[in-house]
Amino acid sequence: MSRKILRINMNDLSYKYEDVPEKYAKWGGRGMTSAITSHEVDPMCHPLGPNNKLTIAPGWVTGTPAAPSSGRTSFGAKSPLTKGIKEANAGGLSGQKIAKLGLAAIVLEGVPEKGKWYTLVITKDGVEFKDAGDILGKGMYEVDEKLWETYPDTAVIGIGPAGEMKLSNAGISVNDMENRPGRYAGRGGLGAVMGSKGVKAIVVDDTGGPGVAIANQELFKSGRKRLTDAIMAHDLTKKDGGLPSYGTAVLVNILNEAGGLPTRNFSSGHFEGAAKISGEAIAEVIEERCADGGEGQTGHGCHPGCIIKCSNIYPNEDGSHKVSCVEYETAWALGANCGIDSLDYIADATYICNDVGLDTIEAGNTIAIAMEGGVLEFGDADGALGLLSEVYEGTPMGRIIGQGVEATAKAFGVHRVPTVKGQSMPAYEPRAVKGIGVTYATTPMGADHTAGYTIAPEIAGVGGKVDPLSDEGKADLSLTFQAATSFIDSSGYCLFIAFPILDIAEGWAGMADTVAGVMGLDITGDDVIEMGKEILKMERLFNEKAGFTAEDDRPPEFMRYEKLPPHNVVWTVTDEELDHVYDWVHAGD
Amino acid sequence: MSRKILRINMNDLSYKYEDVPEKYAKWGGRGMTSAITSHEVDPMCHPLGPNNKLTIAPGWVTGTPAAPSSGRTSFGAKSPLTKGIKEANAGGLSGQKIAKLGLAAIVLEGVPEKGKWYTLVITKDGVEFKDAGDILGKGMYEVDEKLWETYPDTAVIGIGPAGEMKLSNAGISVNDMENRPGRYAGRGGLGAVMGSKGVKAIVVDDTGGPGVAIANQELFKSGRKRLTDAIMAHDLTKKDGGLPSYGTAVLVNILNEAGGLPTRNFSSGHFEGAAKISGEAIAEVIEERCADGGEGQTGHGCHPGCIIKCSNIYPNEDGSHKVSCVEYETAWALGANCGIDSLDYIADATYICNDVGLDTIEAGNTIAIAMEGGVLEFGDADGALGLLSEVYEGTPMGRIIGQGVEATAKAFGVHRVPTVKGQSMPAYEPRAVKGIGVTYATTPMGADHTAGYTIAPEIAGVGGKVDPLSDEGKADLSLTFQAATSFIDSSGYCLFIAFPILDIAEGWAGMADTVAGVMGLDITGDDVIEMGKEILKMERLFNEKAGFTAEDDRPPEFMRYEKLPPHNVVWTVTDEELDHVYDWVHAGD
Repeated sequence: MSRKILRINMNDLSYKYEDVPEKYAKWGGRGMTSAITSHEVDPMCHPLGPNNKLTIAPGWVTGTPAAPSSGRTSFGAKSPLTKGIKEANAGGLSGQKIAKLGLAAIVLEGVPEKGKWYTLVITKDGVEFKDAGDILGKGMYEVDEKLWETYPDTAVIGIGPAGEMKLSNAGISVNDMENRPGRYAGRGGLGAVMGSKGVKAIVVDDTGGPGVAIANQELFKSGRKRLTDAIMAHDLTKKDGGLPSYGTAVLVNILNEAGGLPTRNFSSGHFEGAAKISGEAIAEVIEERCADGGEGQTGHGCHPGCIIKCSNIYPNEDGSHKVSCVEYETAWALGANCGIDSLDYIADATYICNDVGLDTIEAGNTIAIAMEGGVLEFGDADGALGLLSEVYEGTPMGRIIGQGVEATAKAFGVHRVPTVKGQSMPAYEPRAVKGIGVTYATTPMGADHTAGYTIAPEIAGVGGKVDPLSDEGKADLSLTFQAATSFIDSSGYCLFIAFPILDIAEGWAGMADTVAGVMGLDITGDDVIEMGKEILKMERLFNEKAGFTAEDDRPPEFMRYEKLPPHNVVWTVTDEELDHVYDWVHAGD
Repeated sequence: MSRKILRINMNDLSYKYEDVPEKYAKWGGRGMTSAITSHEVDPMCHPLGPNNKLTIAPGWVTGTPAAPSSGRTSFGAKSPLTKGIKEANAGGLSGQKIAKLGLAAIVLEGVPEKGKWYTLVITKDGVEFKDAGDILGKGMYEVDEKLWETYPDTAVIGIGPAGEMKLSNAGISVNDMENRPGRYAGRGGLGAVMGSKGVKAIVVDDTGGPGVAIANQELFKSGRKRLTDAIMAHDLTKKDGGLPSYGTAVLVNILNEAGGLPTRNFSSGHFEGAAKISGEAIAEVIEERCADGGEGQTGHGCHPGCIIKCSNIYPNEDGSHKVSCVEYETAWALGANCGIDSLDYIADATYICNDVGLDTIEAGNTIAIAMEGGVLEFGDADGALGLLSEVYEGTPMGRIIGQGVEATAKAFGVHRVPTVKGQSMPAYEPRAVKGIGVTYATTPMGADHTAGYTIAPEIAGVGGKVDPLSDEGKADLSLTFQAATSFIDSSGYCLFIAFPILDIAEGWAGMADTVAGVMGLDITGDDVIEMGKEILKMERLFNEKAGFTAEDDRPPEFMRYEKLPPHNVVWTVTDEELDHVYDWVHAGD
């Protein structure tokens, strides 16, 4: 019962199963998507042309029984946003179902006849290519609902109108347990790649699938126990810990206190309205509006088997579901960075993003750029909702906004552009938190906090305590986090297991043992960093062949000369230090 | 009476004159702009930020008495379109007046307070900073007219609304002898750089200026005679030759016959309506409409002292001026490449571009992309005029279109994008004319025919005869042309002197002698290529520091797999051959 790769050719609407070839055999999740992209996609191809491929891969342990919080699905391709290699992963239902069909990866190749759109239905018996006319142009809430009418309880991977228009901030939605489109492989415009393949949605039904083979049950179970224990012991992830209680937005007040909460298009690190959009405020709203029952909740899981449950359902005033989920990044990007302190607006804006199919980080940053460019005033919540809504119809403004920060900056003549490799920065100001800035600058993914989350030691005191304002040792710190992350992104585990396993050694070893147990590979905790670096090396080499150089590993110019309040700091990490992060890639050449 | 550099600081509205420092002493025109950009502009700066500089430099011989067709002005900066170094030059009145003020260059530095706009008035006595409120938002026809009311017979360098909005296809206009804004430093978005400096217009009044010093009158005069004789002897440039009779659009039928006239967004090399938009057709319209007098004319000069006079004035039906000038590139980009065969429409579209401040090549290609993206049907002339007109008000659609091809392709999901380094290709299909494709791919300027016009031997049989469809020797051919061009672009001579001097050795030597005579430098015809390569090297090194690699020297992917009718050819020049063009830059490292 070996894993298969399912290749779907959109040129002629054919498909085939193949054994996982040796060169991909050891990989899962991000390792798998990056290996396939590296080996099979011309780094110089147009991301929206016929020669790009979209690879979908569950993690190593995804679909196994009760591996905690392990339901992530990786999506990979050449990115239309960064023009480099991209992996973005999401929770929701897809990972486990794909894995249980015995699939290590689904690869979408080619492009169909212009104007043709399909819903792919994947079952144990193969692939059906259904005309997608009935759901074309629809938002993802309606798409998920309609598809469950015909295919109940399936995983639905889909794109909103933004992806159909191939806009470079289009994400890929995965439905959650309530069949809502809140789980997004958001970053890097992979929804546009899916759109370029003429695929509106992919339905995955694992009924009767073979399930996931586990090579060494004993090792797997022992690892699982130690990892679970670590998660349940750590202050951030345990029951009633920081993440389940307040969600990721627990960070709003913390970053604001640290002077590192980017505000009004990265012009300050402090937002006067932070408390109003914090995790604490979200919990309060939920408590208030759902005191007598209702759908709002904290401690909501984004996929079956999650034991951390950092997600939430944000309620309307009457307690009914408004949107799931208001994350830290979402609250920050659409809120603080636009100078808006209204949670209800943030929830509405998130709903639009989830529905029309945009990454919320890039979308919020984009609104901030539009504000700086004079389209709106900072703080104009109604205006922001209006701009996002224009994406539905593909008005020219909607097409600008739907492309993200760089396109919007160009359209409105803004030169303060907080991007690296074409992708905008998340919710940590690199001038005030230097390590994460090193990650933004150097990760092959474009500015991305999840690519090497040095916030753990720099802000949360997890895995040690490091001064966020200091430049010292930040290259090595970032590399360690980038490598560990690549491994975790390959495992199918949620990145938040990093908090407990960084602090609790048995958790780290346990994680590695679960992977070793499933895959039958000789992997221990000592191999995590090296295997992560193998993945990073594939990704870096892809980007080099796509024309990336050291100059692409730089934060934007304005951060070097513009002082950020309240610390009044500029970017001071040297280019040499940045180049040090990846100097090992060619060390053996 | 040594040449001066005039530095204008927009941060504090100050200016100063300085002697030309040693490192710039030997340069003029493009050599000067590229030297200053290379030495003084951080290659990693944001093109629209405070650290870019806009340099304006007349050529070596510009402003001297009767050096034939030598009135070009070079404009240089880091380009918002290509993100690399840029030089674009134009005819019109500015070069000679700047030179006669004794200026080797004007350098605009810094940025003023947000929202402030200036008209700079430059005379022998210095610079006045006038509030530009009276001409802000106006098209260039009105700007030129208004400024001549106050400053008659001056040179006016200006930007239209596109430049004010800092759109990356904004050009810089120079008024012609009739005070019309038809002469454009069009390519690379330098109008956006001028806009970022808060400068709407620059008035140059050379009254009482010192004039241009000539170090060796005898050498200058002897060179001038031989060059003039060559121009007057060559079939393309002599009185009643191809260029004066039919203008540059004489090439429409020729390229169409060669299967190299890009049609409908580079999907064919043959346009069925070519004859209707050809130079011959333009001459016919002028003859017909102006038989009993009128403003239409062929054989119109773009600057004082031009003896080639390839420009024209295209008339309305009643014989009055409609626009000057309908060039080959203009007729092709707005016509054939959009599938439109109406000269009147082309003239109207050109007028809008000249007025609103867009480069016509990029603008026409942009309309073609919008057509491919489904915004309009190919052939829709009214729709094309409508799209261009949207730039005036800066509607979202206008802002998309005003940014050029790549931005428009991204907005409408088009992956057939005929650009190199972000700049779109001119009117020669690289699959059918391989040498010019090598120039497009490798010039530091982004796709640009004027950067190394191998069309001369490949199509026109000038400077030898080379098979356009063959790959052989095209790297060396392109380099020779790129080097010679850099020299000519530095001289202030119009590039069209290349036709006669390539065929007539005395003309080549004469050109070099005029430069040597003016500058007092030991330059002969044998030094032209080496000096040109010096300029190219500066430009290449700037681009390398801006992050450019060999991968930026590639034609777009679709040209490698999509066969171009009628020859059904793909791009076949190898990457190795492309890399050979500039392998000498680091040969001595």
